[in-house]
Amino acid sequence: MTGRVLVVDDIEANLRLLAARLAADYFEVTTAANGTEALRAMETSAFDVVLLDVLMPDIDGFEVCRRIKASPRTSQVPVVLITALQHQSDRVRGLEAGADDFISKPVDDIELVVRVRNLIRMKRTMDELRMRARTGQDLSLQATESELAGPLSGACVFIIDNDPGSMEFIKRGLQDGYEVKCETRPGRALYRCVEEDPDLVIVNGAMEGMDPLRLCSQMRSNDHMRMIPILLVASRNDRRQILKAMEIGVNDFVETPLDPSEFTLRCRNQIRYKRTSDGLLRAMQETIEMAATDALTGLYNRRYFEHHASAHIAKAIAEGKHLSLLLIDVDHFKQINDRYGHDIGDAVLVEFARRLRRNVRGLDLVCRYGGEEFVIVTPETNHDKAQYVAERLRSEIAGAPFIVPATDEALEITASIGVSTLQLSDETTGSLLKRADLGLYSAKNEGRNQVRVRLIDPQDHLE
Amino acid sequence: MTGRVLVVDDIEANLRLLAARLAADYFEVTTAANGTEALRAMETSAFDVVLLDVLMPDIDGFEVCRRIKASPRTSQVPVVLITALQHQSDRVRGLEAGADDFISKPVDDIELVVRVRNLIRMKRTMDELRMRARTGQDLSLQATESELAGPLSGACVFIIDNDPGSMEFIKRGLQDGYEVKCETRPGRALYRCVEEDPDLVIVNGAMEGMDPLRLCSQMRSNDHMRMIPILLVASRNDRRQILKAMEIGVNDFVETPLDPSEFTLRCRNQIRYKRTSDGLLRAMQETIEMAATDALTGLYNRRYFEHHASAHIAKAIAEGKHLSLLLIDVDHFKQINDRYGHDIGDAVLVEFARRLRRNVRGLDLVCRYGGEEFVIVTPETNHDKAQYVAERLRSEIAGAPFIVPATDEALEITASIGVSTLQLSDETTGSLLKRADLGLYSAKNEGRNQVRVRLIDPQDHLE
Repeated sequence: MTGRVLVVDDIEANLRLLAARLAADYFEVTTAANGTEALRAMETSAFDVVLLDVLMPDIDGFEVCRRIKASPRTSQVPVVLITALQHQSDRVRGLEAGADDFISKPVDDIELVVRVRNLIRMKRTMDELRMRARTGQDLSLQATESELAGPLSGACVFIIDNDPGSMEFIKRGLQDGYEVKCETRPGRALYRCVEEDPDLVIVNGAMEGMDPLRLCSQMRSNDHMRMIPILLVASRNDRRQILKAMEIGVNDFVETPLDPSEFTLRCRNQIRYKRTSDGLLRAMQETIEMAATDALTGLYNRRYFEHHASAHIAKAIAEGKHLSLLLIDVDHFKQINDRYGHDIGDAVLVEFARRLRRNVRGLDLVCRYGGEEFVIVTPETNHDKAQYVAERLRSEIAGAPFIVPATDEALEITASIGVSTLQLSDETTGSLLKRADLGLYSAKNEGRNQVRVRLIDPQDHLE
Repeated sequence: MTGRVLVVDDIEANLRLLAARLAADYFEVTTAANGTEALRAMETSAFDVVLLDVLMPDIDGFEVCRRIKASPRTSQVPVVLITALQHQSDRVRGLEAGADDFISKPVDDIELVVRVRNLIRMKRTMDELRMRARTGQDLSLQATESELAGPLSGACVFIIDNDPGSMEFIKRGLQDGYEVKCETRPGRALYRCVEEDPDLVIVNGAMEGMDPLRLCSQMRSNDHMRMIPILLVASRNDRRQILKAMEIGVNDFVETPLDPSEFTLRCRNQIRYKRTSDGLLRAMQETIEMAATDALTGLYNRRYFEHHASAHIAKAIAEGKHLSLLLIDVDHFKQINDRYGHDIGDAVLVEFARRLRRNVRGLDLVCRYGGEEFVIVTPETNHDKAQYVAERLRSEIAGAPFIVPATDEALEITASIGVSTLQLSDETTGSLLKRADLGLYSAKNEGRNQVRVRLIDPQDHLE
């Protein structure tokens, strides 16, 4: 994982050293000697991560971070604050300024590269999700990212540690408002993780009698846990474990002894990341589902019908089974709309759709075909049964008045139904629809509130 | 990157060695002693990659590979064939059997881990894309994966090498049917890559006077080239370069001297991967767009209207600008449907929508509101202008007959239009729609083929 890094420091020697380290690892590095330069660079170029010294003469690192996070153009770029190890309070201020990560001076080479690489990986994943969600957002069909993430309080955190003492210690380091679950038996951890579906898993890297990375690897390989962030509590002396963990796909690490503000920040960032990506995925899924459904009634739409009806018909023909099609039209709907207005007309359609859905089987395909017209494909149904179904639907519509919401007015609604049934081996959606439409036409002509089955037979043209 | 690996070999010593090497790198390893066991394991468990020995007593590696690739349940799992170095022809057979990669015996530790990790990374990315596309596919709104990828001939391959001699050599190794482009000036390569948008970039890792990995890193950091696969032509002796390249995000490598069948296979696999992921992304994008549009007319649908109209209105109110809304209804549409059938009715709606779209500005929002009803939001338009626009639309509809496709019958179509305009600071989509609806009702009552602007004024109730 490589990427574009902006390094900001007012001391030239530091700047050169950081830039050289990162360039040696093939990152694309840009440097800025102060806050003003940094903000200007952010305006004109795109970066994957910003390394920001805290102490600078013109605008300090906190303020630069705040401005980066406040601009919609740059708020998604991860910011790493470089703080002096002894200045604990800087971390809290960094957190408040919106920093995504921090590194202590003197900067450790391995930590630098691991953290930068990890933030870039996270940003790329989120960029991907955002890019895909953007169409939906451009279409205003989806909520914004912060709406999607929701509040972080209530997030579920799962701690795995076979030592109750250190587990208690980790638990105390967590923010209030999280729902914390613990597991001391690593053998049960995988199973419980799938069950509980936490927003963050914290693994103690110093467990007695077992290799915690094996557990992390199993979690990363499990389809149900792939997207759950893992935070490793690592020993500062075990660099090898940290590197290996990051290679396996552990998302972040904190070193013991735990620094409370660092721990809080890292947990929060991972949870926020999980929540946002979950939200983006969900929104995308919903948008895709919208493509198949009618917004008013929630029934499948005509597009879905056209894609699916032919598959149903082909299957029925291939398997030599029956299949019927019902074309249903609300009688005098135009008058309802004209007389009561569109709101009432819409309410009638919603209730109409509800009655249709409640009176067919799960395997029937119920669609809103257009305006006040609905179509139902009923597999494994011959013309007798289809007529029965259609009659039941007709009487369900006519049998009880439609109550208009708000006014409580009762409208007498009826429907006309044309039925066709699979008779030839070369039938298509078109031929079935056409016959059902002729049936519907007869039903309308013969007084409405009727069902007419239209069969192909020699008498057809004499009807 | 870790994952679940199935290792298949009939010689137990080999099996143990491979398993131990992979387990040391925290892969989850399952072993199978022959083809039958392997296929059984594939049936019951999910793997991210299969390492398959070619020479086995019961079912050989080629046949196992073929069966894995033939089953829809397992066809997406990458298969690595382990072949004897001296048996060149095995690679061609492996290619034909559908293998994704191969490793020569004796197995090199670093190559093993790098290749396995890379295939798992690729599979995960594809799994993600597939998972998201699946909803669309379940809804039958999208094509299948192989349809999406299309034929690989015609793929564009871009070679970067500053030595014309070795470039010619690489070029000759490529399959016929690819469109091959070359660049000997690495400084221009980035720019040209963005321009040409190739399906694969091949970089010679042994370029004189420059670091090819720097170039790869720049490609990986560039937003426009992020998804283009890079294949490195590396020197067998430079393991460090290969490892670094894979770390940066280079997708695959071939070692010199080039083995033609290996080169062909690796190029083909990368191109197929790129084509498939492009196709999945495109399909998803289209499905998302479907959520906002009406399948018949291609206009925005009611859902889109409802999301967007309020934003337009809020903006107009905030900026103190005019805005009008037109509600348009096809006159006597029911009769057209009843008399000529739904096909003709649909053709009328399509032509109607076309005339609307051609006669409004780009910033106007034209939607199919339902059946034969359309709505247009025109920003920066007061009631005078809106009336003018509505009159123009009305005359565009009534002015020329609608020609029915196939029969060439000419239908006289007219429309009634109700217009409302922003007058109060607390107007909503609902209030504008309501007034336009009242206008439409007047237009219908007063003989149809009319425009009626409905304003709020003290005389309102006297109208």
